[in-house]
Amino acid sequence: MDYYSKSVNKLIQELTRLPGLGTKTAQRLAFHIINMPKEHVESLASAMVTARREVRYCKECFTITDQELCPICSNGNRLHNQIMVVEEPKDLVAYERTGQYKGVYHVLHGVVNPQLGITPADIKMKELIKRLEGDVDEVIIATGSTTEGEATAMILSKFIKPTGIKVTRIASGVPVGGDLEYVDEITLMRAYDGRIEL
Amino acid sequence: MDYYSKSVNKLIQELTRLPGLGTKTAQRLAFHIINMPKEHVESLASAMVTARREVRYCKECFTITDQELCPICSNGNRLHNQIMVVEEPKDLVAYERTGQYKGVYHVLHGVVNPQLGITPADIKMKELIKRLEGDVDEVIIATGSTTEGEATAMILSKFIKPTGIKVTRIASGVPVGGDLEYVDEITLMRAYDGRIEL
Repeated sequence: MDYYSKSVNKLIQELTRLPGLGTKTAQRLAFHIINMPKEHVESLASAMVTARREVRYCKECFTITDQELCPICSNGNRLHNQIMVVEEPKDLVAYERTGQYKGVYHVLHGVVNPQLGITPADIKMKELIKRLEGDVDEVIIATGSTTEGEATAMILSKFIKPTGIKVTRIASGVPVGGDLEYVDEITLMRAYDGRIEL
Repeated sequence: MDYYSKSVNKLIQELTRLPGLGTKTAQRLAFHIINMPKEHVESLASAMVTARREVRYCKECFTITDQELCPICSNGNRLHNQIMVVEEPKDLVAYERTGQYKGVYHVLHGVVNPQLGITPADIKMKELIKRLEGDVDEVIIATGSTTEGEATAMILSKFIKPTGIKVTRIASGVPVGGDLEYVDEITLMRAYDGRIEL
């Protein structure tokens, strides 16, 4: 129904395209936007268009970057023979924040998901296989602990093992600082199975 | 930290200006945007700028509209002597959806909130008082049942009563279809106080 002006209706409709935005949230956001200073709206709009236009992926690891090669891949101090495989650039960022990992990455841009029709060919898997022709000692699979993340890890390991390169998986377990009573049963069992001697 | 490209960092930063968007959600949204078809991003960006530029408020009731006078205020079939006072345009829309209300509206664009420093002068209150000089029989106060909504209702009623115009407040009570056990105590008491004879 045309309760608002045409341009506001159009904005609400466009906003509902974004993930996780239902009509109510889109409406709330639209009202916020039309009450923002004009320059802020223009600045947000142009940031969107610019980011979309200028987005580039590292030709080596496929993370988001400005250059042909990302700062990590072009850093001579990183261990280029250790590749951590993650689902998305934000997972790379999460590991970078730890400041502990010294190797390089490979961003798959997704996981295999038969229900959504996402096959290994839809993610950057063959690009990873190609990188293994170089000097690689270890591939650390850091996809999520979801069904799809685990399935993708299995598929990757099946591809990589025959090459003789070491394949590891990040540990599952109880989060540090986490109270046992709030941890689900599967995680608790994983933590038990993965126990280490002290 | 500059984990992503400059333009993506800029987009994330711009998005955090929107209400209810923390860094994590802004990041997720930014990734979605840079993966959207270019035309969709441009269309969303231009919808924002257009809506902000073209936003107009009805000169009578102050709802959002295209024209000088909104379709409700310019409709001869509505009861112009009955004014329902709401906080925001979306509240007007909520009542319009019922299809039952025949009067007109007045949108305050906010409520009085001393903690946030919002006084009667900051909302469209004097514009409402001015409208009462015309032919008005009843003012229905439909601000929210929040502390601020109730306070605003009290202030309005104090202003309007001396004019001899009937002032009413929409009923508080148990939502239709609502299970009593999930309704808070204050609402239950309101529902009791407002009981009607069958």
